[in-house]
Amino acid sequence: MAGTDNLALGPGKEFDIVRSLLAEWGKSAERIGDDAAVLEVPDGEKLVVSTDTSLEGVHFRRDWLNHFEIGYRATAASLSDLAAMAARPLGLMIALTLPEADRSEARAIATGIREGASAVLCPIVGGDLSSGKVLSLTITALGSVARPISRAGAKRGQRVYVTGHLGGPAAALRAWNAGAEPGERDRARFAHPIPRIDAAIGLAERGATSAIDVSDGLIADIGHLAAASKVCIEVDLARIPRLNGVSPLEAASSGEEYEIVVTAPEIDVVQFSSEFGLDLTEIGRVVAGSSGVQLLNDGQRVTAPLGFDHFRDK
Amino acid sequence: MAGTDNLALGPGKEFDIVRSLLAEWGKSAERIGDDAAVLEVPDGEKLVVSTDTSLEGVHFRRDWLNHFEIGYRATAASLSDLAAMAARPLGLMIALTLPEADRSEARAIATGIREGASAVLCPIVGGDLSSGKVLSLTITALGSVARPISRAGAKRGQRVYVTGHLGGPAAALRAWNAGAEPGERDRARFAHPIPRIDAAIGLAERGATSAIDVSDGLIADIGHLAAASKVCIEVDLARIPRLNGVSPLEAASSGEEYEIVVTAPEIDVVQFSSEFGLDLTEIGRVVAGSSGVQLLNDGQRVTAPLGFDHFRDK
Repeated sequence: MAGTDNLALGPGKEFDIVRSLLAEWGKSAERIGDDAAVLEVPDGEKLVVSTDTSLEGVHFRRDWLNHFEIGYRATAASLSDLAAMAARPLGLMIALTLPEADRSEARAIATGIREGASAVLCPIVGGDLSSGKVLSLTITALGSVARPISRAGAKRGQRVYVTGHLGGPAAALRAWNAGAEPGERDRARFAHPIPRIDAAIGLAERGATSAIDVSDGLIADIGHLAAASKVCIEVDLARIPRLNGVSPLEAASSGEEYEIVVTAPEIDVVQFSSEFGLDLTEIGRVVAGSSGVQLLNDGQRVTAPLGFDHFRDK
Repeated sequence: MAGTDNLALGPGKEFDIVRSLLAEWGKSAERIGDDAAVLEVPDGEKLVVSTDTSLEGVHFRRDWLNHFEIGYRATAASLSDLAAMAARPLGLMIALTLPEADRSEARAIATGIREGASAVLCPIVGGDLSSGKVLSLTITALGSVARPISRAGAKRGQRVYVTGHLGGPAAALRAWNAGAEPGERDRARFAHPIPRIDAAIGLAERGATSAIDVSDGLIADIGHLAAASKVCIEVDLARIPRLNGVSPLEAASSGEEYEIVVTAPEIDVVQFSSEFGLDLTEIGRVVAGSSGVQLLNDGQRVTAPLGFDHFRDK
């Protein structure tokens, strides 16, 4: 990286908005203004890349989140995909589509993006600004790691672990959909998720062989992991770590949690929790059987609830 | 790269659309389906990344382009930013926001993306699919090069060159805006631009010290280059290579051309054109003076026309 000085930009209103974003980002933005960003991938490491769209009316509503939170949450969601590969962030590309009515909020969005990025020491390295009818952020997260963890590495006999406590985002959505204001705790879990970068790298160091972040909902995401690994995964509903006031099924289907699920040989959860200040809970096993998720509750088989799917039948 | 086998995906309508995109991409798609794509950057090379949004009603209109062309053009535009750095493509990330009414056209969009990618031997390595009201593609192009060419390398005394012949996209827009159908040639220049990857690498090998692709319009883009390099650039309008029926001012302000402008010591344009099958024209010089563009026409100073700026005053 050649330092934090950005290139001089030409004249025009579009560049005025870019300049105000850059002013807000300060030292978080590195050499923005060329046709493309230039990054160094550390020797011996692979490049890891993910792209995520956060769209008004689909991924958020502006009566739920303020502009700072819209920027923060989109950034955290994108960085969470790096965590799911146990990769360390190298940079973010921000494609922002900004309605005219939101121009005065561009700086608030930028502040949220900066907070999300700087929480994991990730520079903002480039982007694209468009004027459009619907507020939208497509954030591409670039990272690197020597040995990325894929969804496809789960092996029979391994244990299944999840970080944190689930259900906050579902509880917040339940309140909003009922016309109420969610409690502070649930709203914060929805508006201010934490990408689990350090924890995921710690899990990789402890032998995790597959990983996914919880975005569609715990069971749906474990289903993706089981499909990719071609294994059967048993999850015990009663063991899913959940916030007070959240039912096991709600915790199991709550999306956009951005906690991390891994399969691994046995991990010392007490030692992990004390090192990372983050609870780690064993919730299931990789077992014999056809590819998919098998839910248990006190040894009883139960039917899997669906995770969030933008295109499911309504 | 671990081969062309993609991960097994879970159930759901969203994944059905992803599966149909992957079917269309065939061997152009590599290991899609994990949380993030994993790529190798060649030893000794830097990673080059650009992200570009192509938005219905802003960057294209669906009465102008069919779905194949929408996909192709967005892909070519994004790859053109790699050309502007003299980088070779490594992979594309495709964030697609698809209105319900366009679901049946997802494969046509995918075919256009594949054609744009495979023309420069670039695999499609990942993406994100959302359902939304406005058709939009945000394409992130990843590439690599040992020594990237920035906008900031122009030096006094150097010459300014541009590839191809300008004005086609402006002429096509002029026809559409007048309610007419553009001629075949102009429409093709708008709908099917060619990212100048090989030509740009050839220009770098011939000593180019700065480069930009023509997206806002030749003079506007040379303005960006002059601002970044902190130099004065003289451009002779009469020397701008233009298609028949296009005025010099129209050629100078025509956007989304995706031709390449470089500054360099003298280049043998005849040899270049015969090697790359693409005309290269000397159009100006880097001269003494304050940072910016100085237009000439037979030695007379003229006022610079504006390039396209999404946020300029109307």
